[in-house]
Amino acid sequence: MTTPDLIPVPASITDPASFGFAACEGGVCAAAGIRATGVHAGFRADPNRLDMALVAADEPCVCAATFTQNRFCAAPVQVSRPRAASGHAQAVLLNSGNANASTGEPGVACALASAACVAKELGCADEDVLVASTGVIGVQQPLWPFEQAMPAAVESLAHSPAAAHAAARAVMTTDTVPKEVSLEGTVPCGPDGAPITVHVGGFVKGSGMIMPNMATMLCVLATDAPLTAQAAQKALSAAVSVTFNKVTVDSDTSTNDSCFLLATGATGGEPIDCDSTAFAQVANAIRCAAEQLARKIAADGEGATKLVTVDVVGAATDADADTVARAIANSPLVKTAIFGHDANWGRVAGAAGKCGVVFDQYQVDIDFLGVPVLRAGLPLPMDEGDMLRRFEEPEVTIAVNLGQGDASARIWTCDLTHDYVTINGDYRT
Amino acid sequence: MTTPDLIPVPASITDPASFGFAACEGGVCAAAGIRATGVHAGFRADPNRLDMALVAADEPCVCAATFTQNRFCAAPVQVSRPRAASGHAQAVLLNSGNANASTGEPGVACALASAACVAKELGCADEDVLVASTGVIGVQQPLWPFEQAMPAAVESLAHSPAAAHAAARAVMTTDTVPKEVSLEGTVPCGPDGAPITVHVGGFVKGSGMIMPNMATMLCVLATDAPLTAQAAQKALSAAVSVTFNKVTVDSDTSTNDSCFLLATGATGGEPIDCDSTAFAQVANAIRCAAEQLARKIAADGEGATKLVTVDVVGAATDADADTVARAIANSPLVKTAIFGHDANWGRVAGAAGKCGVVFDQYQVDIDFLGVPVLRAGLPLPMDEGDMLRRFEEPEVTIAVNLGQGDASARIWTCDLTHDYVTINGDYRT
Repeated sequence: MTTPDLIPVPASITDPASFGFAACEGGVCAAAGIRATGVHAGFRADPNRLDMALVAADEPCVCAATFTQNRFCAAPVQVSRPRAASGHAQAVLLNSGNANASTGEPGVACALASAACVAKELGCADEDVLVASTGVIGVQQPLWPFEQAMPAAVESLAHSPAAAHAAARAVMTTDTVPKEVSLEGTVPCGPDGAPITVHVGGFVKGSGMIMPNMATMLCVLATDAPLTAQAAQKALSAAVSVTFNKVTVDSDTSTNDSCFLLATGATGGEPIDCDSTAFAQVANAIRCAAEQLARKIAADGEGATKLVTVDVVGAATDADADTVARAIANSPLVKTAIFGHDANWGRVAGAAGKCGVVFDQYQVDIDFLGVPVLRAGLPLPMDEGDMLRRFEEPEVTIAVNLGQGDASARIWTCDLTHDYVTINGDYRT
Repeated sequence: MTTPDLIPVPASITDPASFGFAACEGGVCAAAGIRATGVHAGFRADPNRLDMALVAADEPCVCAATFTQNRFCAAPVQVSRPRAASGHAQAVLLNSGNANASTGEPGVACALASAACVAKELGCADEDVLVASTGVIGVQQPLWPFEQAMPAAVESLAHSPAAAHAAARAVMTTDTVPKEVSLEGTVPCGPDGAPITVHVGGFVKGSGMIMPNMATMLCVLATDAPLTAQAAQKALSAAVSVTFNKVTVDSDTSTNDSCFLLATGATGGEPIDCDSTAFAQVANAIRCAAEQLARKIAADGEGATKLVTVDVVGAATDADADTVARAIANSPLVKTAIFGHDANWGRVAGAAGKCGVVFDQYQVDIDFLGVPVLRAGLPLPMDEGDMLRRFEEPEVTIAVNLGQGDASARIWTCDLTHDYVTINGDYRT
């Protein structure tokens, strides 16, 4: 028989060239008007380990944010959510080592006081300081590291790649690498649509998806494009929904997940609102930055050896596509098979079939690592040697066509390994 | 502070004495009128490994069944589902080593032909033979082992504990132990409500929840109580919904999951219909038998070191309780924490909060291993030495009170261990 065509999957926008941007240097400090720092404040015992990050705009600016949907939400989320809703802020304070979660009223008081420390040193309003924490939960967060470290931390704020890098390192927990991105491109937001060069940069931490193992997703993005508050929130929400919200390491979400966007407008130019000509391009840059960071989270999943991309196409609805893609991406049997270099389409089919989404098993196609392995519900002969060679790559792709409609979804995950069990199970053994 | 009371959880019916029954001998052959056998037919290479089981009533009798809800369903399920719907059957044929799944029309033909082999030797109608398979998928099932082994297999059918045990062993795959149950009790189904002793027995296989690793749930129950077809189906469906359907090893379901009940009525007595006085007692016995088998599946989960029972109470609805209990039971972070003897209530809270069920975090209580660890959303001091001692037991209990209403759910699972990854990930490494 002739080899069937591969399942067509939607294009990613991982490549910034697709909308006229390019990678640049600087992380979160790629954006003009942004300074950053990362210091050791004392949340961690090891004096060589950075544990507090501060990102500050030169003056109050536009902000947008998204937060965990977990019913348990930590004190910093309770403080930052209403503040970010104002659409303006000047700084984001982050710490690792203590999540300030399940800490009740004293936890909220500490989060407020830590923000006040920043406001005092920076000379801004308390309400313009956003906060985020990651680390152990159920332990009251001490205020003294913030108080003690803040004057020097604010003093050390700098607009440099090194400063951005220090901030990215200071929020790491089980992350094995800091995760940064920076893009630049020219958009028509000058007078009469004249081109102006703008930047989008940021960092993220995230490895497992939950708390006591000090693993949460915290992200700070910054741009110097003159976005309005409404445009910033629209671009960030759209980006998060197809990037960070499509990553699953272990199906667990955190009490602390937070994603912030500061838009300084330091480039000057006309304000970019949702209907401005330049909006789509800047929104794409924000989405692309978020996608690059999201892929770094999945690739750095606890114990992971592979970044796994699951595409589901041909679904009746977007929700169906998302449900099936998540069922596959969260299946321990699929994830362990990938760890074992086993192109086990049967487990993919089983995961797709279990999640309540209606389809006809005899209309389903599956590709594994770019090879058609199932067509119309029946297996194709598989060259196992070829599959083993394809497993040498750091990325694994799975595509499923349900044959029911035109909707699709993409989810990123990683494999499930002995090291995941060791990281998460070897506390007390 | 005084120690708070434990969260009250609904009573289990694990103890048959609670409805006047007691454990007895015989497995599926505890029921009068039932014979069984387990043989090596040839689906497996090892001639010492049993791979075909047959359970037969002495004559056609009442049957009931439940099947996988997976959209991918195997050929034997496609054959057995309509047959069982008739409410009568005489035999159940099961094999391990090949699941006959994703095998298209030839697979259905093989399933039909295997049933015909049984019918020919047993002298019954083809339609009174139900079939079930477990093993590798996507590989055509050979007919010759059925044809070759059937005459001697039917010849070897016996009404004995040893024969029941052989059948239970013949369906094992990654199961480490055969799983059987048998109960007896006296119910008022004789003339004028006179007491008659009836039996419920059976076996199950199940370890992981999915296919290519030859892990599926197959169960055969038998009773000699004179249930009508309607009563048998009602009792079985009710039992399965609160037992087998409440077990999760890895959240994955199989293409082949099947549960059968044969009711021979060999005890004589008045037919037991849904509104008979004796119905509740027999239904309880069937539920109790299923619960004991379900707990054995969870305890024998792939790589498991602990049986874990998750109770969620105080939910607004049954569906909310089930969703939260499953989210906890399927959380890799909760499961690895238990493997690590870590009473990590934070991960339990995180799993509860992530699943979309609405509650107030400050109304949630959690008990871990029979110790109150969270009250009104805030942690209590924990004696870690005491917790470590409690982890020496083979069972782990987690109870969560959402404080929203009166609904509850109980889910059984196991921990997530290095051995799970080894069993499911070490195919080709």
